[in-house]
This record gives sequence, C-alpha cells and structure tokens, in this order.
Amino acid sequence: MKRALVVGGAGFIGSHLCCALLKKGWYVVCIDNFSLGSRGNIRELLPDKNFVLYEADAAKVDAMEVIFEKERPDYVYHLAANSDIQASASNPEIEYRNTYTTTFQILSCMRKFHIPRLFFASTSAVYGDKRESVLDEHTPDLAPVSYYGAAKLGSEALISAFSYMNEMQALIFRFPNVIGPKLTHGVIFDFIYKLEKDPKCLQILGDGNQTKPYIYVSDLVGAILKFQDMRHLGVELYNVGVEGETSVTRIADIICEEMGLDSVQYHYTGGEGGWKGDVPRFHYCLDKIHKAGWVAVYSSDEAVRKTVRENISGKEDHE
Amino acid sequence: MKRALVVGGAGFIGSHLCCALLKKGWYVVCIDNFSLGSRGNIRELLPDKNFVLYEADAAKVDAMEVIFEKERPDYVYHLAANSDIQASASNPEIEYRNTYTTTFQILSCMRKFHIPRLFFASTSAVYGDKRESVLDEHTPDLAPVSYYGAAKLGSEALISAFSYMNEMQALIFRFPNVIGPKLTHGVIFDFIYKLEKDPKCLQILGDGNQTKPYIYVSDLVGAILKFQDMRHLGVELYNVGVEGETSVTRIADIICEEMGLDSVQYHYTGGEGGWKGDVPRFHYCLDKIHKAGWVAVYSSDEAVRKTVRENISGKEDHE
Repeated sequence: MKRALVVGGAGFIGSHLCCALLKKGWYVVCIDNFSLGSRGNIRELLPDKNFVLYEADAAKVDAMEVIFEKERPDYVYHLAANSDIQASASNPEIEYRNTYTTTFQILSCMRKFHIPRLFFASTSAVYGDKRESVLDEHTPDLAPVSYYGAAKLGSEALISAFSYMNEMQALIFRFPNVIGPKLTHGVIFDFIYKLEKDPKCLQILGDGNQTKPYIYVSDLVGAILKFQDMRHLGVELYNVGVEGETSVTRIADIICEEMGLDSVQYHYTGGEGGWKGDVPRFHYCLDKIHKAGWVAVYSSDEAVRKTVRENISGKEDHE
Repeated sequence: MKRALVVGGAGFIGSHLCCALLKKGWYVVCIDNFSLGSRGNIRELLPDKNFVLYEADAAKVDAMEVIFEKERPDYVYHLAANSDIQASASNPEIEYRNTYTTTFQILSCMRKFHIPRLFFASTSAVYGDKRESVLDEHTPDLAPVSYYGAAKLGSEALISAFSYMNEMQALIFRFPNVIGPKLTHGVIFDFIYKLEKDPKCLQILGDGNQTKPYIYVSDLVGAILKFQDMRHLGVELYNVGVEGETSVTRIADIICEEMGLDSVQYHYTGGEGGWKGDVPRFHYCLDKIHKAGWVAVYSSDEAVRKTVRENISGKEDHE
C-alpha cells in the first residue's frame, strides 16, 4: 500500500487530493495547522481506517520530523501555504513563514528521512505581471509582484537544489486560480457572501476587467495523479490550466444568474488590479501538459458556473 | 552626507565596500555578526568618525529594526550571506538562515522605515549547471543545484516583490568568484594554506578542469558604485564578470610560481566538480554591463595572480 503525506491536507485543494488518494486505495497522512484548512473539509474522511490526521505546523521542523519518522511516506504533497495573496500584501511575514519556511522544513525532513518524491503546488504568480505575453514553462525574467509569488518562486528554487543534492523526484505545477466545492476565499467566495448579505448591489475590486483562467479542482487533482509517477530524477514543471478565461465582471454576472438576482448594481472600486500585487491578466501556454496527454474537462466559464452552483448556500451540483 | 548601511560589512567584499564608501565621504554603518567577517578586516576603518560598527545578526529582525530606526540609511548594501557553498552542502539550514532570512529581514526593515535603495549581492549559482551555455540576464529555467544558489534566487524573488510593493530601487549583481586581499575561503585561500603546510604536494578537489571567471574585488566595488544611482524604480540586474576564466589547475600553477615552488605533485580527487553542488564551468555574457559603460580592469588570470601575491604570507602587492 502506497503511503502519502499531504501537507495542508485539510485545505481546499488538499482535502480533495486526500479524498482522491484514499479512493485509489492509498494510506493517507494529512497534516494541517487549521489556519486556512478546516476539520469540516475532511470530516467525511476521518472514519476511513487508511486516513490519519495530525494537527501540526509545517513551519516547525521538530513536529514535522516526528511525523515523518513515524509515517515514512512514499510521496509528499506540499499544499501548505498562505493562499490569500491579499492578506499577505499588508504582512509579508505570512509568506515567509507559511509559504517559504514550510517548503524548507518539508524538504529538510525529506532529506533526513530519504523520501524521494514530492508534489509541489506553485502558481502563476511566480511569473509576475507579464500582461499580454503568453507564458510557458521557459519564460525568462520571472519577477513576482506579490510576496506570495516571491515565496513560491523561492520554494521552487529550494526544490531544484534539494532534488539535485538528494536525488529526489519533484513534480511542480504552476496553478492558475483553482475553484470548486469547499472554497475558502477568492472572488467567487466573496461575491456570493456579499450578495447573500445585500442582493441589490455588489462592490467589485478594480475595474472588473481582471481576466484569468479558473480551473475546477477535480481537474487539477486528476492532473496531479496522472503525472506524479515520474520517470526521471530532478524537477518536472508544468503550467496547468484550462481553455478560456473569465473576467471578474463575468463572474459577477454568472453568480447573479445562478442566484436568480437581476438588476444588481455593480460598484467598481476602479484601477486595473483588485489590489496591489494582483496580476490583472495572464495567459498560459499549455502545450507542454497537453502534449503529455492531459486536458482539463471544464473550461474556465464552466468551472466558474459549477463552483457557483455548489457554493450557493451549500447547494450541491449534480449535473 | 549620504548614509550607507552595509550588512556583512566586515566580510571580505563588505569591508572593501565600506572602505570605498568612506573614501567618497559617506557616513557608513557596518553590521556584521562576525561569523565569516572579522574585526581584522575593518580595523583600519574603526577610527574614522564617519564609520560606525554594530555587531548584530541580520537574521534577527528586532536587532535590525533598532539599527534601522536609529541610523535611517539612504542606501542599504546587503552582502550578508553564507559564502561557503561547500559548508552548507551538508547543512542547508545555514543558507535558510544566513542567506535567505537575512534578505527577508533586511527588506522588512526597509519596508518599515521607507528606505528606497538596495544593492544585493547575487551569484552565478542562481543559474544552476548550464555547462557550455552562455548565460545572460534573460537566460530562462534557472535551476540552482546548491542550497546557496537556491537561497540567493529566493532572495532575488523577494527583492522583486518588495521593490514593486514598496517602490524601491534595487540593484542586483550576479557575481562570479570574487577574490583579492582579505579572502576568507575558496580555492586560492585553500591552496596557499595547504602549500604553506606541505610545499611538496597539493590535493586538488575534482579533476582540476573546473574553469570559472575570477573578478578582483576592487573591480567589483567600482561597479557597485558606478551603477548604484538608478534612474527607475524596480530591479536592475547585471551579470558582473571579467575577460577570460581560470581553471583550478591553472590557479595551482600560478600559486606555485608565485611561491617559488616547483615539482609540486598534484593529487586530484577526481570527478568534474569540486563537491556536489559545485558548478564546474560557466560562461557569462557581459554585453549588458559593457554596454552600460563598465569593464573590469583585471582579467581573470590577472586577478588570480594579484590575489595570490597579496595573500602569500600577507605580502602586499604594489604593482
């Protein structure tokens, strides 16, 4: 039986990944500090005899070493990070600690206990603000404009050195926006929350033209499982994305449609980005992952609509 | 009077920079924890009324904030790092703490006290092992193979985000090997030490064909002073280098010549790199810095010979 250790396993993406690994018949060790993750996300997994939960902080190496020594995983999935870019804009220490230091300590444990396989959740934010450029995995001059992007790019650099020095295999995905059931923050989450409070008007950060690809979480988890068995040592890196992209105003429209609201007044705060450090537009080249045989099931607009349906008052989508 | 804060100012390069800034008539605040730096390096600067020394650890933000608040520098020069790649190969924690965390804490202080100008000492190690490729500032796929290179690349990413978020100007130089008086480690330092102990035979790590450009420290300091007044906000990045490159065996030959030793037996430990994580060869494209009007005075071989003369039993070179 394969043994997985999912750091950040009670988070939005982590909890979906734990579920998928259990369905494959794996033994799954979940570590979370419940800062952004929640027990609710993994409630249905707790009775599974192949699921074990540790409440621990991945930035603290002593606690992590105890778990690594006891559980000796075959695969480590590192999904622990501050995922709320807006929050860390006013406190970069959050990224230093929760995004970068967690990576360093996880890699140190892998080095110490000779764990050879890592999956790492990176981000489009490592590229910085490249506007109309089409971004592929070889795009040069990576220049993050957010502390989040900086801590993720620093983490990628650590993974490069640790995998070389310790003969590891590391799969890195640079995620776009990821959405689906159990969302904890982000534009869809915010808009639904605001419209449930006030169905007449909606404040929209920026000019509403921020336009990004949104991937549905099951598509992303499918890609992780498809590529996690690597043939070679070292780092394999993919942009992961979907067809199309969705503007913030379009998201508001879809939410209003699905909530059955009309004549909602949109109030734009103005400016290109939602906040300083926000990259208002980016375009991925997906040739590498497509040629490797993976394509997302849901387009960006489809992922948004499906997510909205699932998140309106906890309604389930069974289409 | 301009106010400079040099972190790592008692180190090899830092002490030369402090000296040059004092000569320009600046007020110079030197911070060092004396882990690799030494009081000996700055002894001649201590009587200068425009020079002030703090023994402090740049990885500890509380101590740094006190100094920033009191001294309010116009320019910060960040030269604090673990510069001994071989040492951190067996203990990556050194790089996390002394190379990456120092950068994060310095940037946090600059953010807090609104200090707008930074110089950062980066390295060829950020590129990773690209062998025969010619490396320019836009080379993609940076993939460090040492923890040192990883921590420096992570630092560059932090500088990108902090400078964007806080409207700073940051000058980054990717150094090759830097040599000159007050060397504390590295191949020249090691070979002289070994040959002073045993003038008959010399152990050489690797196959001796590791071939790199060596820059003389005064050339490097001159380039810092030339480019430190930037016109634009954001990051300006240069490869800094010299004409030619020098193999490890050639360095041994020059040292033997200068020490008046002949028939020294060379014993090679074998393998391409001196140690795991060592990049045995790299080639810089210097077009960017040359077009901006700077060229090194000393070639790589000249820098090596000059450094050897200055470091043999503390002999001064007055050529």
